[in-house]
Amino acid sequence: MGPARFLITSRDGLARTGLLSTPHGVIETPAFVPVATRAAVQVLSAADLQRAGFQVLITNAYHLHLQPGEEVIRSLGGLHKFMGWSGPLMIDSGGFQIFSLGSGRMQGVGKVGKGNRGDGDRPLSNSGSKSSLVRLDEDGAEFVSYLDGTRHRFTPESVAESALALGADLIMALDECTSPLDSYEQTRAALERTHRWALRSLEAFRPRAPKGPALFGIVQGGDYEDLRRESARFIGGLDFEGVAVGGALGTSKAHIRQVLEWTVPGLPEGKPRHLLGIGWVEDVLTAVRLGLDLMDCVAPTRLARTGTFLHKKEKRFRLRIRNREFRLDPRPVEDDCPCPTCRTCSRAYLRHLFMAGEPLGFHLASVHNLFFMEALMASLREAIREKRLGLWIEDFLTKK
Amino acid sequence: MGPARFLITSRDGLARTGLLSTPHGVIETPAFVPVATRAAVQVLSAADLQRAGFQVLITNAYHLHLQPGEEVIRSLGGLHKFMGWSGPLMIDSGGFQIFSLGSGRMQGVGKVGKGNRGDGDRPLSNSGSKSSLVRLDEDGAEFVSYLDGTRHRFTPESVAESALALGADLIMALDECTSPLDSYEQTRAALERTHRWALRSLEAFRPRAPKGPALFGIVQGGDYEDLRRESARFIGGLDFEGVAVGGALGTSKAHIRQVLEWTVPGLPEGKPRHLLGIGWVEDVLTAVRLGLDLMDCVAPTRLARTGTFLHKKEKRFRLRIRNREFRLDPRPVEDDCPCPTCRTCSRAYLRHLFMAGEPLGFHLASVHNLFFMEALMASLREAIREKRLGLWIEDFLTKK
Repeated sequence: MGPARFLITSRDGLARTGLLSTPHGVIETPAFVPVATRAAVQVLSAADLQRAGFQVLITNAYHLHLQPGEEVIRSLGGLHKFMGWSGPLMIDSGGFQIFSLGSGRMQGVGKVGKGNRGDGDRPLSNSGSKSSLVRLDEDGAEFVSYLDGTRHRFTPESVAESALALGADLIMALDECTSPLDSYEQTRAALERTHRWALRSLEAFRPRAPKGPALFGIVQGGDYEDLRRESARFIGGLDFEGVAVGGALGTSKAHIRQVLEWTVPGLPEGKPRHLLGIGWVEDVLTAVRLGLDLMDCVAPTRLARTGTFLHKKEKRFRLRIRNREFRLDPRPVEDDCPCPTCRTCSRAYLRHLFMAGEPLGFHLASVHNLFFMEALMASLREAIREKRLGLWIEDFLTKK
Repeated sequence: MGPARFLITSRDGLARTGLLSTPHGVIETPAFVPVATRAAVQVLSAADLQRAGFQVLITNAYHLHLQPGEEVIRSLGGLHKFMGWSGPLMIDSGGFQIFSLGSGRMQGVGKVGKGNRGDGDRPLSNSGSKSSLVRLDEDGAEFVSYLDGTRHRFTPESVAESALALGADLIMALDECTSPLDSYEQTRAALERTHRWALRSLEAFRPRAPKGPALFGIVQGGDYEDLRRESARFIGGLDFEGVAVGGALGTSKAHIRQVLEWTVPGLPEGKPRHLLGIGWVEDVLTAVRLGLDLMDCVAPTRLARTGTFLHKKEKRFRLRIRNREFRLDPRPVEDDCPCPTCRTCSRAYLRHLFMAGEPLGFHLASVHNLFFMEALMASLREAIREKRLGLWIEDFLTKK
């Protein structure tokens, strides 16, 4: 930890720009992190993602353990070589799956109130309650594979070791992510276990190289103020090289902001801060303004699948290309967008592809939406450096 | 017609290389034509197809009429501008849909014995017999839209005029494509109607510019020798600028060859010859050897969807990436393939993508399979120019 790893290069209010060094290169923050749950970002190749300017992707230890399994990836030379991505790679721990395959599944809440952490674009069914696919104890979590019913045990130690063996650069410690429907007592118990697991993760992670992979501790606490403050202080005080904010962040934009306002003051200034599974445009603005440095979300590709294009001037930043008004529209989605989709396709053509069910539509929309997010982050970085973030966000929000 | 349009540049036996001039550029033949039924080739962008070296795509008048409709494409500046493809475009007529939505649907045969002409990668259901969605009469064909039940009339005149209005370069006349289950009498009746429609198509196509779009007449006749010979002579003798071989070509490789051996001798030497809906690797070799110049097929992307990669040395030229033997295989699909997929991905990674149901697998397999086809055509052209086609094919077939 410290300047050698994360260098804050400018500040504007609580927001900051920084340079985060990893074994596979330096990340300019704030940065948006596309989700490559199973070592792939939907229909985009590593080359597509590099063209879009992305610096880092996030994979998922739970999913990669089940498919294809660590031994496959290791024998192919590690995660980078396996997926053809030479830049930094983050790996999430499986903590979200403890929620989504456990209490989330039993309560039938799926992803309600959650930022879709780590399941790619394949949402679990959330219709009605089901039996849990996770058994939790103090040692760790035992999952029943959704593929073949086999049992798999994850512990703080096994997750840290597996992530190291895969060659990930930024590694999330195993946490216990709770449901927004959990009581205060349940949320406190999960938080305390997450804290005990944090200590075990740190222990398992040593001895580590000073310039090797970095371990991130995860703050929990649901939407309870005292728990968030307590968890931020506890996790922030440990010897992690980065801190992530996880768990249920409430069901409204205002609530996400509230949870971050409780959490951020407890975090150490000098460490990079990641927000897990949050990435709607409005949430990104909130998170950056409150001093978050990294955030991942499947939103850009999930929107793409339904023909929703991100757009600076549309309501809620969304243009629904299937609308009949675009039937004869010769303009690109965004006039000034440099992405390959906007450079080559009219709205009328894109609408046609979605109306006809042509898979090319999904590809072209994903390309645009990811370019949009990267361009947004570049603008936010510039605004922070020039100390005009507040004005920039205000303009961005009102220009619609 | 004639040297100004199609120039034969070398010959080897019946095979030939040529240069086919169109309003949007010159096509080196023999050429494989990817299928863009609804103005899109599955998940590949126009830029991907240009990178793969393709010279010409084939769209479908029937499908584009229903979705998005000619008026949309025209108002966007024509088919080229609409789909972002600046090279030559071929357009099929809807003759195949007369079969597939008519007798094919009633007989429950779907695509049996057919080379999948013009329905992209979305096969119609062929389970059991259904009512016809086409009513045929001497004037033309009336289709019930599969989208909204509306009725649409296609005549030889309307198809030729619509293709001209869309700006297509190489235009198939409307034909009546028969089912392989049709009797001799039914096949003869359809052939005779196809011939009468050919005359009407030619009439509707005038006055045309000498360097404008070219109209292709279509040879029918099922798998009856005398009908094929008669149709080849009749269509070949008309003032079309190109000739296409359509209809049921039999259910085996040997049968396709037989039908072509009956057909080709009746065709004029100097006109380009297109084979509709045929494009398995073995069929391409047969067609080129017998003097065909162009051929289209959905096979490369249809195989890609199931994780089947074209491969020079594998049995039937197919490598099924889901096979367990590739689980840890660090090699590219083909060692010497210059496609982006082979340059960046191991077999183990590609297998993982298909096992995990990641849509990137389909994209990467489509890219490889289309590069494979284009490289195959380039090799065939070179072998013809060097007058060693027979040996080249023998080597290609036995090196497996």
